[in-house]
Amino acid sequence: MSETELPEAPAPEQDELDEDDRLRPEFVDAVRDAVADGDDEAARALVEPLHPADIADLFELTPHEDRGPLAKALKDLLDADVFAEMNDYVREDLIDALTPTEVADLASELDTDDAVAIIEDMEEADQRAVLRALDPDDRAAIEEALSYPEESAGRLMQRELIAVPDHWTVGDAIEFLRGHEELTTDFWEIFVVDAGHHPVGTCQLSWILRTPGNIAIADVMKREQTLIPVDMDQEEVALRFQKYALISAAVVDSANRLVGMITVDDIVHIIQEEAGEDTLLLSGAGDGDINEPIRLTVRTRLMWLVVNLGTAMIASSVVGLFESTIAGFATLAILMPIVSGMGGNAGTQTLAVVVRAIATNQLTDSNTRWMVFRELRIAAANGLALGVLIGLGTFIVFGRTDLALVIAAAMFTNNITAGLGGVLVPVTLDRMNIDPAVSSAVFVTTLTDTMGFFSFLGLATLWGLHA
Amino acid sequence: MSETELPEAPAPEQDELDEDDRLRPEFVDAVRDAVADGDDEAARALVEPLHPADIADLFELTPHEDRGPLAKALKDLLDADVFAEMNDYVREDLIDALTPTEVADLASELDTDDAVAIIEDMEEADQRAVLRALDPDDRAAIEEALSYPEESAGRLMQRELIAVPDHWTVGDAIEFLRGHEELTTDFWEIFVVDAGHHPVGTCQLSWILRTPGNIAIADVMKREQTLIPVDMDQEEVALRFQKYALISAAVVDSANRLVGMITVDDIVHIIQEEAGEDTLLLSGAGDGDINEPIRLTVRTRLMWLVVNLGTAMIASSVVGLFESTIAGFATLAILMPIVSGMGGNAGTQTLAVVVRAIATNQLTDSNTRWMVFRELRIAAANGLALGVLIGLGTFIVFGRTDLALVIAAAMFTNNITAGLGGVLVPVTLDRMNIDPAVSSAVFVTTLTDTMGFFSFLGLATLWGLHA
Repeated sequence: MSETELPEAPAPEQDELDEDDRLRPEFVDAVRDAVADGDDEAARALVEPLHPADIADLFELTPHEDRGPLAKALKDLLDADVFAEMNDYVREDLIDALTPTEVADLASELDTDDAVAIIEDMEEADQRAVLRALDPDDRAAIEEALSYPEESAGRLMQRELIAVPDHWTVGDAIEFLRGHEELTTDFWEIFVVDAGHHPVGTCQLSWILRTPGNIAIADVMKREQTLIPVDMDQEEVALRFQKYALISAAVVDSANRLVGMITVDDIVHIIQEEAGEDTLLLSGAGDGDINEPIRLTVRTRLMWLVVNLGTAMIASSVVGLFESTIAGFATLAILMPIVSGMGGNAGTQTLAVVVRAIATNQLTDSNTRWMVFRELRIAAANGLALGVLIGLGTFIVFGRTDLALVIAAAMFTNNITAGLGGVLVPVTLDRMNIDPAVSSAVFVTTLTDTMGFFSFLGLATLWGLHA
Repeated sequence: MSETELPEAPAPEQDELDEDDRLRPEFVDAVRDAVADGDDEAARALVEPLHPADIADLFELTPHEDRGPLAKALKDLLDADVFAEMNDYVREDLIDALTPTEVADLASELDTDDAVAIIEDMEEADQRAVLRALDPDDRAAIEEALSYPEESAGRLMQRELIAVPDHWTVGDAIEFLRGHEELTTDFWEIFVVDAGHHPVGTCQLSWILRTPGNIAIADVMKREQTLIPVDMDQEEVALRFQKYALISAAVVDSANRLVGMITVDDIVHIIQEEAGEDTLLLSGAGDGDINEPIRLTVRTRLMWLVVNLGTAMIASSVVGLFESTIAGFATLAILMPIVSGMGGNAGTQTLAVVVRAIATNQLTDSNTRWMVFRELRIAAANGLALGVLIGLGTFIVFGRTDLALVIAAAMFTNNITAGLGGVLVPVTLDRMNIDPAVSSAVFVTTLTDTMGFFSFLGLATLWGLHA
């Protein structure tokens, strides 16, 4: 393919990015080398063609100690848009080195939601200094946003939006948009409001473009609209956007007045984070951000591990009950971890499915009972299959029918325990308004460990197994 | 708040939905009861005010055997939009009961991407029958979409889009949009193409609305655009939408000609699925869909469990090496699962973080070495803390310094193993182009189980521990 045939084919960033849109290691190294050599011009020339999201990635891929020099070299290429795209920890790292006035300058270039994201994590005193350095309008908007709870719609929304009165025509609206230079261009729908500034309808821009100017806007707008209460949690906002395939939505206060707008591009990373965080929470890795200061990471993970150490000791004390049985027949110690471990695996499967189903609103009070029976049937089928397999395996290796029968029965029992626990633990936690992703795994594995040891060693003791 | 003050306050669906936008169980029961009583009118009256996404949810919350009667009762309330919102398995369930002509009628009402979603999972023969029943234009569009690989951009895109030549003015574009009734209204940007139908720029509708008619469209459009190759995997498409905050994007064929458009509302559920699936894949629960036929679920989960049974037996054979040590000192059997289990927990934490970081393009070749060191430092810190804790605990319970030192050393060793394995296993699999979420956990837990048993029992044997 020649350049003349397809003038637009090679996108400007294709040299820096690999096929997965990630910055190539050679490119990252080239920038680092330029900065290390003090050749700021070369570094800037390399970075200049990048999209702000890629410049943000570049900072994330740069070790902590090299970020300051990189920022100095890039100067104004590190602009507000880049900060808006950056990982929270990396941004904090860089923001810490700026004066309040510099931060205020950045914030004033951004929509409210992005400005809030930059300012909300600062120390109280720094935050106040930045707010003082902002012009009064921006300050008021940001202070209002900060008055809403963290991770609520009020923090996510932007105040820049287009609202028109419900008595206007389509032509009025177009004239208004053309006549006011200062209006935002970052909108996809316009909101129609009544005299009390309550939203009464939403209009896609395509409808406005395709309708003659003399038609009343009230005849074009869609009256069934999905409004977002300003104090709604961002996870619910994300689910609502997803469920109703929204591009933007009006945010209303408790008196149902239009106070802001959320657009889907601010929601996609929340959808991604919220959906991905279950993986991390279930494993006790906290928010699992690789840019988090290592001290925080150790604290989060260690807390979880210590809790698990406690429960592991409880499960082990069950083994202690049967110490004399094991002393008389050490083979039991070889097989025992298989029963507990397989129960843990089966329980984790059920848990993952149930936690996801709760998070995506697929599992509700209407189908919980059905779900319990579903998991019980799966557990019975798998327990039977695994029981037969481990029974056969045990018979082949150790040549003892009694041992084979005991382990098969224990395996079946522990699978049923895992299936039941895997549903009931997260469902119960959810009903108690505890996030099931955070603490279910501890309960379920304690259950399967304990039951695994108890059923296997208990049956062996009852049967009187010995070497 | 009175109705007159806030005429728009109670959204029509508020009675049927709870505060999390889920259908209330009482509402679901009321519909079910009406259908069971043969009172179709009552059922329809209840369901009529619902959004298509909620009607789809209603079917998902209804047990398999009651879905047919519900569909009969609701008649045309179960329309194409509802099918487009429905879980794949539930939709298949209902579609199976329809004639090819009925399916074709549904498909012709939808955008290509939604029509393809309905048709792509049908049996070969049924699919052909439906395609025959479609009018030629729809058939051609759907057949072309089906020619692209599953889960590629070609399946996701819609052919309905607005493209205008690059020599037009803004006024020409508006006139064109107003003059052609048959054009889609489901668009947020228009694409500007050259004579060869190659996209040369993208125009947000807000820019068009705010620009005087005599300005050339080429002066308004944005030239840096993110194009999606038609064969790109949907996960990459989703990451690209997210990274560049896209609302819609042009899809191009291998000759860089505009062939379709993807809009963000079709992407949000992919972002959610792809981000959430790691939780399920790591646990070996497959795609974890609660509507999947139980037989498929059992097969998926059992396969994973059998693999794990194999690796558990390998790990247990390590215990077998030390049978005589255990026979001489059964307390080792009590403590042994703590060491292996805690290694498993720590390994799972690292694994979850690394798998997410790979999936979100945060971990690349540029920072892998840094990540390995990061996890090693965390593992060393946690291993030290846990070693001290379990050492102390063991000394308190069993009153033996030798046993306490052995278990502390084994705990530390296994944490380091977990940290290293937790990074290196998924990174290696990813470089081999194997999805690290699918198979990492088996390797890592086998590693931590084996190393846990080996280090603890090995050290105990070396030290000559006995009762």
